[in-house]
Amino acid sequence: MAETKSTSWLKPSLDWLLIFVLIAIALRFIPSLDNPTALFIVSCLAIIPLAGWMGKATEHLAEHLGQGIGGLLNATFGNAAELIIALFALSKGLEGVVKASITGSIIGNMLLVLGLSLLAGGAKFKTQNFDRTAASTSATALTLAAIALLIPTVFHEVAAVVPVAQGGWTPEKEQTLSLAIAIVLLITYAFTLYFSLVTHKDLFIGEARMGAPQEVGHEEEAAGEHWSKKRALITLLFATALVALISEFLVGAVEAARGALGFTEVFVGVIVVAIIGNAAEHSSAILMAMRNKMDLSLGIALGSSLQIALFVAPLLLFASYFFGKPMNLEFTIPEVVAVIASILIVQQICSDGESNWMEGVQLLSVYGILGILFYFLPDVHPAATDVMNGTAPQH
Amino acid sequence: MAETKSTSWLKPSLDWLLIFVLIAIALRFIPSLDNPTALFIVSCLAIIPLAGWMGKATEHLAEHLGQGIGGLLNATFGNAAELIIALFALSKGLEGVVKASITGSIIGNMLLVLGLSLLAGGAKFKTQNFDRTAASTSATALTLAAIALLIPTVFHEVAAVVPVAQGGWTPEKEQTLSLAIAIVLLITYAFTLYFSLVTHKDLFIGEARMGAPQEVGHEEEAAGEHWSKKRALITLLFATALVALISEFLVGAVEAARGALGFTEVFVGVIVVAIIGNAAEHSSAILMAMRNKMDLSLGIALGSSLQIALFVAPLLLFASYFFGKPMNLEFTIPEVVAVIASILIVQQICSDGESNWMEGVQLLSVYGILGILFYFLPDVHPAATDVMNGTAPQH
Amino acid sequence: MAETKSTSWLKPSLDWLLIFVLIAIALRFIPSLDNPTALFIVSCLAIIPLAGWMGKATEHLAEHLGQGIGGLLNATFGNAAELIIALFALSKGLEGVVKASITGSIIGNMLLVLGLSLLAGGAKFKTQNFDRTAASTSATALTLAAIALLIPTVFHEVAAVVPVAQGGWTPEKEQTLSLAIAIVLLITYAFTLYFSLVTHKDLFIGEARMGAPQEVGHEEEAAGEHWSKKRALITLLFATALVALISEFLVGAVEAARGALGFTEVFVGVIVVAIIGNAAEHSSAILMAMRNKMDLSLGIALGSSLQIALFVAPLLLFASYFFGKPMNLEFTIPEVVAVIASILIVQQICSDGESNWMEGVQLLSVYGILGILFYFLPDVHPAATDVMNGTAPQH
Repeated sequence: MAETKSTSWLKPSLDWLLIFVLIAIALRFIPSLDNPTALFIVSCLAIIPLAGWMGKATEHLAEHLGQGIGGLLNATFGNAAELIIALFALSKGLEGVVKASITGSIIGNMLLVLGLSLLAGGAKFKTQNFDRTAASTSATALTLAAIALLIPTVFHEVAAVVPVAQGGWTPEKEQTLSLAIAIVLLITYAFTLYFSLVTHKDLFIGEARMGAPQEVGHEEEAAGEHWSKKRALITLLFATALVALISEFLVGAVEAARGALGFTEVFVGVIVVAIIGNAAEHSSAILMAMRNKMDLSLGIALGSSLQIALFVAPLLLFASYFFGKPMNLEFTIPEVVAVIASILIVQQICSDGESNWMEGVQLLSVYGILGILFYFLPDVHPAATDVMNGTAPQH
Repeated sequence: MAETKSTSWLKPSLDWLLIFVLIAIALRFIPSLDNPTALFIVSCLAIIPLAGWMGKATEHLAEHLGQGIGGLLNATFGNAAELIIALFALSKGLEGVVKASITGSIIGNMLLVLGLSLLAGGAKFKTQNFDRTAASTSATALTLAAIALLIPTVFHEVAAVVPVAQGGWTPEKEQTLSLAIAIVLLITYAFTLYFSLVTHKDLFIGEARMGAPQEVGHEEEAAGEHWSKKRALITLLFATALVALISEFLVGAVEAARGALGFTEVFVGVIVVAIIGNAAEHSSAILMAMRNKMDLSLGIALGSSLQIALFVAPLLLFASYFFGKPMNLEFTIPEVVAVIASILIVQQICSDGESNWMEGVQLLSVYGILGILFYFLPDVHPAATDVMNGTAPQH
Repeated sequence: MAETKSTSWLKPSLDWLLIFVLIAIALRFIPSLDNPTALFIVSCLAIIPLAGWMGKATEHLAEHLGQGIGGLLNATFGNAAELIIALFALSKGLEGVVKASITGSIIGNMLLVLGLSLLAGGAKFKTQNFDRTAASTSATALTLAAIALLIPTVFHEVAAVVPVAQGGWTPEKEQTLSLAIAIVLLITYAFTLYFSLVTHKDLFIGEARMGAPQEVGHEEEAAGEHWSKKRALITLLFATALVALISEFLVGAVEAARGALGFTEVFVGVIVVAIIGNAAEHSSAILMAMRNKMDLSLGIALGSSLQIALFVAPLLLFASYFFGKPMNLEFTIPEVVAVIASILIVQQICSDGESNWMEGVQLLSVYGILGILFYFLPDVHPAATDVMNGTAPQH
């Protein structure tokens, strides 16, 4: 109780941001207030607390469902807000934004969230320790994901110079290759859940399950915040509906807004959407680091990256078929480079089981350098329609 | 004794596959049975037990020659079957298949053999431990090998855009560069042997010497299987002669067979030939993992990869001069990517000195993803003749 | 005392090389001796002892300035000789040589200096130990540097295919991107100094500060070599003036000499200039390894690489504006590959906290392979003038 009180001011409540939900609705439906740039910015701010409420409701619901199913629920819907935004973007054919936001979520959690956590924690504690094995398992899974995202790009680059008659690159082949890789990723994710929820669950007990900041919930629970199943379910449904509504605003305004703001499609996806979608993870992971609970902090940051790469990305590929605009898993070269670079540095930081503020600075520095790249980079993502028409790719 | 008995059913004897030696000879020499695809498949199956017998005979012969020379013999002829297949392929000018099978042997041992071992071992034991230092030394040597295989490709890509008059790419330069790198690799391999057989042999006592499953031999020995020097020598000569004969069949039928099966040259080399040539390592490494002898299991898998990269690849380059069709060390970009990706994930798995079944799944998942890439990839290896004529490369 | 005596013959005094300072002056100013190739070689040899004296004087001066400022001085001027050579080369527009010498200093310290140290130390001691944490922090910082050097090249490769009207590559954008990255690197370097000199200085007490072989000085001090502040200052000024003079000779003769010697610009920069500029680090690091002071040895080798990448490279970019020929941070693909490959292998060798002679051989082997690449590679660095004219790059 005392601890909760003394640290409660540390946890920046994002609930005041809920006011932006109302502002967004006003901007969208009152004709005289029509301003896509304002709508885009306000929608961004409105998503942040809603994503937090979705996460919280998921955790509370998970408690009622028992450890197995509950863990599965947490592991599956931990990034539901990102998923909803991406689905709306897909339905509008914004494949470039979707892929960029996948990239951005992966590197954002690894570099920005983890970097801020190590910096904030390291400012209070000289050296912080965490379990090497759990961190390494996540780092290895992320390496696997990076390889998976690299392969469709390598295929394109190499096969594009071979005439089609001799087996050269076609959009159909890229699609089939991507589908096959997506299936491998989903199977691997299923095994990862089996590993963390069944055979080696003791490694993860008292820890964040894949991407789910549930311990945060437990602590609040101790402070009297136990939710009934009904309350959890209603909150989840209501928050999800609002996220869907605001996502529709956000995606509808993105094209006009990025023109006005001078951002490229890839910058919006990699930096803006990724920061918004992961704001809840940010505050939880940083809070845990400041409480010297590094295992939880790393679990949230790395687990969230992992879930995006192994679960959300393949799921979006399958979902894209429902919109009649199949998405593949081919990322641009800068996106692939960004993911691989992030893995390399995170792996080094995780391998020794201890952290200090300088490691936080190093992660943030890499994030800054990658941010600079994406800011200057022109849009080179081949539009989904071009790819389906077999037009030669631009990169 | 008891242990041997109780585990003997675990070791899948491959000897019944020897029947395919006879079938292969029949298919090849009885005109009415002429069918290249059948001959290819049967030859593949026939090589597997023969490679096993070559390995076993080498180990038994090594025992008679004392630790130093014996270790050298093991380290030098551990991959003799692959070497013989590759020599026959080289003599037919199938440079693409040879390079692909080098790639396939390296990644196959690291991902498939090690992955199956960790999975099989992890299914029986929750956590398995191994010596970090020995595993790390092998992983570092493999990183060195990956860099060596990357350099000729980088040279080609960069130098190809410079006019020849200004020092641009020519096949002769690529050849000289490859020769220089091959010499560095062989010198490094010689030092590696000196390290493991002389100055730091205590690290490797009771362990598999580079790529040689000799402990497997020792265990069988305990069960009464001591071979005389004569028996070992005759078995070795006889098995080698049969491997050579069947390799000749296999290589002669490969072109017709892969057309019928719809496989590309690179898929046959990377996946098919590599699995066949390393089948003996597969069964030994998996067996050791199931007996919780992880140092041996890793020693076989990583040592075999190492030997292919540092010894067999340079040797084939030198041998190619005898066939009048000099081979270089330039691999295709997907081959280089596959080797580097494999190293990155193996390094992570080896760095903590312990393993579980999930790490096996992760290695197999990467193998699956790379297998998908090579299945869809068209053949882009510049034919050996084109390279020698100075034709512009296709990639 | 006894130890110093018994090891003094181990430290190869480079002072006899000072004779080449006089020879260089003679070659330069006596018209009948005009021979650029001889001048180049003699200048190379003359720089070596002068760089050593600059380093020694900096250390002695640092002692008088107290730990904080002294450490800063050491960390800032540890690579002053390289900086002076690079400034002269920049003023002559030899941007390719400057970038190549940055690359060469980074990989030379990591592979050649560290490789020779581990080999020399490992020849005397079977296994040598060092502090994992300090080595890992340096390795992580080097990974960050490698990512920073990779990004401008990725930007060029990707943005070059987009028309300028749609945001494609222009020299101005490359310049702005490079400036932004240089600022991030300098900020990170400032934090690194704050980390090692203030918040975590205990980790580095009794150790080499970033790139400064000060402990070497301490040991000599014990043998009676204490310098007054005045002596240190005068020696520093005098040595710096001579380095500047000889650098001017060296840079003036480099174009004519490399034609005569058949070296490319990039080979001269990566191998020749880098070895000369780091000769002092070489002898100190090797000596420390032979005394089994591995922390110092690694501190010198890795710290020097770090300082070049995070401090000297951005500084040269800023300095280039004074010469009216702004340099960017875009390196050639082989340079980027060389830096990344070096990081990968050094990271593996540092991660376990122990070393043996074989690891030295492995580092030297990678250095040899990269040396072969740069020897055969034609010059593909876009000349500084071409870049500023917006000519399409050659790679």
